[in-house]
Amino acid sequence: MIGTPILPEIRELIERRNFSALQRIFNDWMPADLAELISDLPENEQAILFRLLPKELATETFEYLDFDSQQNLLTALTKKDVTHILNSMSADDRTALLEELPGPVAQELLKLLSFKEFKIAKTLLAYAEASVGRLMSPDFLSVKKDWDMNQVLEYIRTYGHESETLNVIYVVDDHGKLKGELLARELLLSPPEKKVRDIISEDKIVTLTATQDQSDALEAFKRYDNVALPVVDSNGYLIGVVTVDDMLDVAEEEETEDIQKFGGIEALEEPYMDLPIHEVIKKRAVWLVVLFIGEMLTASAMAFFEDELSKAIVLATYIPLIISSGGNSGSQTATLIIRSLALGEITIRDWLSVMRREVLSGLALGGILGLIGFFRVITWAHILGIYNPSWLAVGITVGIALICIVLLGTLAGSMLPLLLKRAGLDPATSSAPFVATIVDVTGIVIYFSVASLLLRGILL
Amino acid sequence: MIGTPILPEIRELIERRNFSALQRIFNDWMPADLAELISDLPENEQAILFRLLPKELATETFEYLDFDSQQNLLTALTKKDVTHILNSMSADDRTALLEELPGPVAQELLKLLSFKEFKIAKTLLAYAEASVGRLMSPDFLSVKKDWDMNQVLEYIRTYGHESETLNVIYVVDDHGKLKGELLARELLLSPPEKKVRDIISEDKIVTLTATQDQSDALEAFKRYDNVALPVVDSNGYLIGVVTVDDMLDVAEEEETEDIQKFGGIEALEEPYMDLPIHEVIKKRAVWLVVLFIGEMLTASAMAFFEDELSKAIVLATYIPLIISSGGNSGSQTATLIIRSLALGEITIRDWLSVMRREVLSGLALGGILGLIGFFRVITWAHILGIYNPSWLAVGITVGIALICIVLLGTLAGSMLPLLLKRAGLDPATSSAPFVATIVDVTGIVIYFSVASLLLRGILL
Repeated sequence: MIGTPILPEIRELIERRNFSALQRIFNDWMPADLAELISDLPENEQAILFRLLPKELATETFEYLDFDSQQNLLTALTKKDVTHILNSMSADDRTALLEELPGPVAQELLKLLSFKEFKIAKTLLAYAEASVGRLMSPDFLSVKKDWDMNQVLEYIRTYGHESETLNVIYVVDDHGKLKGELLARELLLSPPEKKVRDIISEDKIVTLTATQDQSDALEAFKRYDNVALPVVDSNGYLIGVVTVDDMLDVAEEEETEDIQKFGGIEALEEPYMDLPIHEVIKKRAVWLVVLFIGEMLTASAMAFFEDELSKAIVLATYIPLIISSGGNSGSQTATLIIRSLALGEITIRDWLSVMRREVLSGLALGGILGLIGFFRVITWAHILGIYNPSWLAVGITVGIALICIVLLGTLAGSMLPLLLKRAGLDPATSSAPFVATIVDVTGIVIYFSVASLLLRGILL
Repeated sequence: MIGTPILPEIRELIERRNFSALQRIFNDWMPADLAELISDLPENEQAILFRLLPKELATETFEYLDFDSQQNLLTALTKKDVTHILNSMSADDRTALLEELPGPVAQELLKLLSFKEFKIAKTLLAYAEASVGRLMSPDFLSVKKDWDMNQVLEYIRTYGHESETLNVIYVVDDHGKLKGELLARELLLSPPEKKVRDIISEDKIVTLTATQDQSDALEAFKRYDNVALPVVDSNGYLIGVVTVDDMLDVAEEEETEDIQKFGGIEALEEPYMDLPIHEVIKKRAVWLVVLFIGEMLTASAMAFFEDELSKAIVLATYIPLIISSGGNSGSQTATLIIRSLALGEITIRDWLSVMRREVLSGLALGGILGLIGFFRVITWAHILGIYNPSWLAVGITVGIALICIVLLGTLAGSMLPLLLKRAGLDPATSSAPFVATIVDVTGIVIYFSVASLLLRGILL
């Protein structure tokens, strides 16, 4: 759905400057769809269309726009419009916008806020990036324990319009300390005279703190299936609310980070195309150089076996095949283990059963590849008509080396993430390229050791 | 939080069979936490503790249990308890349980359901795995357009207890056709005499169909930030509702699949430790063999250059270093591109600007590695005291080969996902090992070509 080209009829109406028709159409659109349409337009047309939207829809649409279009509209719209949008958009979306803008621009915009909104914006921006504080909205409704449902309903009708969510109403004591939550479900199902205190259970309340990492919030939402969670300060006072719709975005960002790490690259933190090319290169160069320096050991290992190599060049020709098999099986295993660790399916304590499984897998997979490799060597020699009994020994060498190296790959791929986790590091650091590098170096040593053993007196 | 050891005090109460104290404690726990505690217990203790829970909490806790514990409880609890749980648990969680159970067991359990629940369960199980139908709940509330808020509230109080969510109430016509949705927010904020028809807007409604893929539902939830979405049949009749809490799980499953694919392994679809070892081996063997067969071309390529090899064994010693650099840069690029495609940050149409970026990155990164490689060769020869002018040529060969091969890696890693997407295939198929294999083969050809060119008359 994302990135669909602009509908031809809309395009035509824009060309013909038929704004009243556009206005009618847009009124029936969802803010998310309007935002996509506007993002797809050339910059000079964005403001023209945006101005056609009624005020409330305009603000909602603005919240869904990508950062570039938001920035463009901020300069293209009148100061009055910008002031309205900034003051009426939800606090968490505004924080997301302000944190992306260059400092001086953000400062200018802050001046457009009412005193109340200014204070809110300042407070939220003070929280660290990727903290719960940056996602939270201070617009929540709080009621008292001794109210009945009628009073709550009355209160909501009067003060609820600004609230980020009405799916959960919070219950606080006279000092603002969080005492419980009243779900819209409970509110709607209870008879009008029922008291809040008879519905809520104080002990069963899950809270977040503003300084917590957003990934903690994601875990809590996944675990408890809430639509919103309250944010409290260190004394238990309610200061904000985080809603579940933000969590799908957090989940997406976390996934991107995980995947990039596993691909052997520092997390980009910005869309690929938006990041200046030298930044991308910097993010990639670090790991690439580390891996390169590690991989240099392969050259040293091979130099060590130069004597064997010069006697049997054929050994050299199978090196890439053999070490890559170790790398592939290793990155398969690392993928499985890192993911299982992240999902909590396995813990460090399971290392022995993991190892047992991976030894079995390694032997089985190594056996399969070893057999194929053995036949490859023999068949090749036969085809070229150069077969003699020493080829059998080469075939056996390749086969046995493959079994050992695939086994090595599965072991390295499984134990490395667990070791990293044990050392308090991120298991995802044992990326596919990282595991492959380790297996390459040890693989060469194994291969030549097997060869020295089996080919001594035959080729060597 | 997941996988925490059982709290010592709970353990002690279990040992001392102090069930009344446990009962008091459990009453204050969240179902998700109770489920974790019970999952962590040995199988023979699970039922003992589970029976301590009051009925409603028991059902909720059961919904959060992992499949193994659910299965264990189904055999350990009385038929009466099982009947109660199965009939009162939410329809979507029940579907998830029944679909995992062996056919005959599921059939036995279906017999315990009331006629109404039996019909629901049968209907939901008929939808394909990973379809929206498997997530949906048929327990929703629907109201009519000409009702006022008072009537709606009355209706909810009478019939709302069973409803999966009350955050959204659906509006249907006399035939059950979906006409709009009334958010709890709107319901709570509107004056009692306001009519439904004056609140809802028929055009602004996002719907799902039961046969759609769950990933489509995830996209819709991400895009529109809803807490629930209605499911309609092909004629627009409302048949169920999907809630956002299920989406975090769908997102997690999708991420697991993506990561596993990228690690060069078929998606497991079950937790690593739960899948029988031979299944894991089967899932891994396919790709591993395919890659192995592809990688065999490296042996052929090297056999082709055997003549060069025998003249300059030193060339062989740098092969793993050089081809792995191509593989690493290729898997970095593939990671970035596959992810950006998945997020809609880039589309196939951007191929030219992607290529431009990757040529630049490839040259820069290749340049860095090439320089390091060059100095490695020269320094090494000096240290060993075997330096002679021909080593300079070897150094230059290694350096230039690195630039070419890293560039090749970035190009293959970026264009392959785009080509796969263009061909209607999943870009994630161009996994790290897949790209590495392609680069290995072509890398060897490039390396020896550069060597033949530069070392002709020197070493060759």
